[in-house]
Amino acid sequence: MKKAVILLSGGLDSSTVLYYARARGFQPSCLVFDYGQRHRVELKRAAAIARQAGCPCRIVTIRLPWGASALLDKRIGLPKRKAVDPREIPVTYVPARNIIFLSFAASFAEAIGARAIFIGANAIDYSGYPDCRPEFFRAFQQALDRGLRSGVQKKTIKIYAPLLRKTKAQIIRMGLKLKVPYQRTWSCYSGGRRPCGACDSCLLRRRGFEETGLKDPLLVTRTPGHPSHV
Amino acid sequence: MKKAVILLSGGLDSSTVLYYARARGFQPSCLVFDYGQRHRVELKRAAAIARQAGCPCRIVTIRLPWGASALLDKRIGLPKRKAVDPREIPVTYVPARNIIFLSFAASFAEAIGARAIFIGANAIDYSGYPDCRPEFFRAFQQALDRGLRSGVQKKTIKIYAPLLRKTKAQIIRMGLKLKVPYQRTWSCYSGGRRPCGACDSCLLRRRGFEETGLKDPLLVTRTPGHPSHV
Repeated sequence: MKKAVILLSGGLDSSTVLYYARARGFQPSCLVFDYGQRHRVELKRAAAIARQAGCPCRIVTIRLPWGASALLDKRIGLPKRKAVDPREIPVTYVPARNIIFLSFAASFAEAIGARAIFIGANAIDYSGYPDCRPEFFRAFQQALDRGLRSGVQKKTIKIYAPLLRKTKAQIIRMGLKLKVPYQRTWSCYSGGRRPCGACDSCLLRRRGFEETGLKDPLLVTRTPGHPSHV
Repeated sequence: MKKAVILLSGGLDSSTVLYYARARGFQPSCLVFDYGQRHRVELKRAAAIARQAGCPCRIVTIRLPWGASALLDKRIGLPKRKAVDPREIPVTYVPARNIIFLSFAASFAEAIGARAIFIGANAIDYSGYPDCRPEFFRAFQQALDRGLRSGVQKKTIKIYAPLLRKTKAQIIRMGLKLKVPYQRTWSCYSGGRRPCGACDSCLLRRRGFEETGLKDPLLVTRTPGHPSHV
């Protein structure tokens, strides 16, 4: 089987990508980042999702002590109930986050002999982060091709972002077919024990489920140890 | 003054770059990586060099537990007294090291409002690492221009690699003019208390000093607390 590194956050998109890669015949190894995010509850969710999918999971701890993001610094308020405008980059932007995550993924992939990295980035129903756009991934792919031993040896490690041009509703429909356990995923940025329902990430998720006409199983299912939010 | 992030390892090249950036009117902030390297003695050297240069210094701790490098895994032997062949990539290559370091540097630079990153990479007297070559830096620059908020806002964070096309002897001559305290720098990979004189990095350094006709002050000067190696 073809090895692949999956950047898994425990959210809806990356969990869908994990199941997608598995369905495509890849043997996934998940890479999860504890980067000081306020919603660190996602770490446990990511580990649980990897376990349910039967895939190994590594948690990498990094710190970005320079902050400059509402996800890292609780003194910066999260935008609430504000329509997401992808032309604006919100305060939840973390400088170079995907650049850092992909760099570690490339190191890990090269070390284990994987030729694929999967990332759940999306440039349609998204928060406007520049490192989620196709032009960024194309450029970063070039950097890997030139900066990695495997690239120089023509054994390219390829970045796959299969959700890049899908709407959130399309992602959810695809994930449901793949039996992604959405009740275990976590999207909320707020850092509370229940989804706040008002941050960018909750809004995008809610709109996605509304468009499918389905209920978000996270909000209706009781997960052991996690009170439901109804 | 123009802020700049300097990737400082405590070695000869990056220390020269720190002094070069300062002389060019930049206000340097040093970024040093504890990445599990066997020669962690370089961390103290880097901090001391930054202090002597009067520049702030941050040490970032990361781990690459997948190893796959003689610098990370002591079970992989270091090549000794072997002429460096830049067409071969040696076992001291760390997968994606400069990619990771530059990613953090970009995050830090964007957070503090710096528009410059300096790296002491060299593609002449070097070990053949692909992420030290001009084509890699060009590609990574494109990735930053497309993936960072500052890039999208046309406030490019530029990567400077002023040593890229210099010989080691040229670097040393330049550094001596800039009064780089070479007696405090550390190049050896071995992880001992004295330079081994036989690893890639020691060989490149020695050849550089030989070409200048000067003695390496690290090998003749007694640094407090560090026995000299003569």
